[in-house]
Amino acid sequence: MKATFMYGAGDVRVETVPDPVIRESTDAIVRVTRACICGSDLHPFRSRPSGADGTPMGHEFLGVVEDIGTAVTSLRRGDFVIAPFAFQDNSCVFCREGVQTSCIHGGWYGNNGVGGGQAEAVRVPLADGSLVKVPGRIDEALYPALLTLSDVYLTGYHAAWMGRVEAGKTVTVIGDGAVGLSAVLAARRLGAERIILMGRHRSRTDLGVEFGATDVVAERGEDGIARVMELTGGEGSHVVLEAVGHLPAYEQAYGVVRPGGVISRVGVPQYEDAPIGFGSLFGKNVTLTGGPAPVRGYLDAALIEVLEGRLDPGPVFDLSVGIDEVPAGYRAMDDRAALKVLVTF
Amino acid sequence: MKATFMYGAGDVRVETVPDPVIRESTDAIVRVTRACICGSDLHPFRSRPSGADGTPMGHEFLGVVEDIGTAVTSLRRGDFVIAPFAFQDNSCVFCREGVQTSCIHGGWYGNNGVGGGQAEAVRVPLADGSLVKVPGRIDEALYPALLTLSDVYLTGYHAAWMGRVEAGKTVTVIGDGAVGLSAVLAARRLGAERIILMGRHRSRTDLGVEFGATDVVAERGEDGIARVMELTGGEGSHVVLEAVGHLPAYEQAYGVVRPGGVISRVGVPQYEDAPIGFGSLFGKNVTLTGGPAPVRGYLDAALIEVLEGRLDPGPVFDLSVGIDEVPAGYRAMDDRAALKVLVTF
Repeated sequence: MKATFMYGAGDVRVETVPDPVIRESTDAIVRVTRACICGSDLHPFRSRPSGADGTPMGHEFLGVVEDIGTAVTSLRRGDFVIAPFAFQDNSCVFCREGVQTSCIHGGWYGNNGVGGGQAEAVRVPLADGSLVKVPGRIDEALYPALLTLSDVYLTGYHAAWMGRVEAGKTVTVIGDGAVGLSAVLAARRLGAERIILMGRHRSRTDLGVEFGATDVVAERGEDGIARVMELTGGEGSHVVLEAVGHLPAYEQAYGVVRPGGVISRVGVPQYEDAPIGFGSLFGKNVTLTGGPAPVRGYLDAALIEVLEGRLDPGPVFDLSVGIDEVPAGYRAMDDRAALKVLVTF
Repeated sequence: MKATFMYGAGDVRVETVPDPVIRESTDAIVRVTRACICGSDLHPFRSRPSGADGTPMGHEFLGVVEDIGTAVTSLRRGDFVIAPFAFQDNSCVFCREGVQTSCIHGGWYGNNGVGGGQAEAVRVPLADGSLVKVPGRIDEALYPALLTLSDVYLTGYHAAWMGRVEAGKTVTVIGDGAVGLSAVLAARRLGAERIILMGRHRSRTDLGVEFGATDVVAERGEDGIARVMELTGGEGSHVVLEAVGHLPAYEQAYGVVRPGGVISRVGVPQYEDAPIGFGSLFGKNVTLTGGPAPVRGYLDAALIEVLEGRLDPGPVFDLSVGIDEVPAGYRAMDDRAALKVLVTF
């Protein structure tokens, strides 16, 4: 089969490798129907040191169950499934507490002998806990929306949910990437009336407005902070959803959050140390939350919304490529020529 | 009157100064009945550069209203009142949202022409919003408990409240100072059954056990983290209440918190930058919360509990001094000879 590997910054290759096979009795093999490239894939695409070994890439995919291990009980060959971006048993103590991305037995695609999702087939560990079956006949037009439940939309939803977005609260979303726009859509669905989107790519912020943003702030840094403060009558935002992951985005977040407010991060932090003392978070009783979205916990409810036509984050995909063109897809996202790239098979 | 000033590290003096007078129509003058020394007063006591000007000290006091400005409507001369450690109008947008310590018109004792609470009398700005009248005849035996509502107990309560302590959750409290012990008491009252107190001063942790701690961990650093992990079956604590304010306490907090857990800080951070990236908070979806306690918001309910005899944080006071002995009181707390020092007049 063909699969995607990264060898270093800017160096993504599609190679032919053996098809995956069942190794554990709890595995399933999924023949991939749609996959995509994640904003988080761009971090190593920009900075990863070159090496002799390639890392399997991709962690978002839809597909058809091709084979199952003997211990798999909830799936059959031929089932159409969504794979959350992390695998988990969905039954350990942390899964039961709603933190499936910290599953004691779970893990991430693309390492420890588990392949990536930007491939024609994937071995999915802990298949009963990890794969969500889509019932009935599925209209191909729904594929993009269904694929967003693998990561991007539900990551935006996680930000909004952990930020306790609700009616009457002003929400600021930092970042006009696909996760930021998903956060706008999720915030709107959770009842926010005032949603300020901080981003400077017009085509993206236009989609943000379609998704529910009421204000767009193109300025960054101190100017951006000043503009949000002005828009909120000098009070600041109740909730800030940080969907970038770089330190300046976090600095913007604590600059615009109001006393008692919440900063909810879903952009994977590209920093470890950052200000959290009296002058940034503590003095104004700001809550900092977020992390890798426990997509599995949100997926069942969101799936119903998509199938019933009430939720469509699909427009975050604006470019479609075949598996051989995945490296070009990375470049398109890196150049911001594409917002989010769908991979078809 | 006599009042306390700090001139530098270790240099606390009681001086005779003019009695305070009404300056604004919203002021009240309170004749102080009981005051105390705060753990946060020890930070400058250990590190403040020497200077020619003394800073008025103290921000916790009970007393009797001696005079009121013309605009004060809710208080009369002779009322017995509790002063929250910050003053506020209790009516601005942030006060209404429950963040009285960020009141737009509020402030802190000991600067900008407002004196400190370790004094025979205090000018209280925004008296209607700041002072809470204690109804009826008050038994002097209740003074210590009532004084804890000015800061220390309700700061511990703020930690527990923001940490979303509830039945079924394991709580770890870092710090066996008066705030830490208050946090133990508050966590117990909010329903926590398992409360692990990290502290190494036996007389203090004994009081912590009286207040509801079920386990005491004397080890610090990696050993302390390992011990808490062992006590929680390797899972970590749902809630960590950080009542110290130094970086190692924060590091301990993210070391023992479980995935999806909450770190709630009320120790005033003596640092600005700290780890919050994938390896500390983000990766396990840890929420960081806390700040200066909006005591005014919690005070009415807690006052009823104290007056009805259901709540008694008074035992955090273990040494009583007169106003002239306040400098000795600082030294006793700094030496850990005293847990918390009450000042009588």
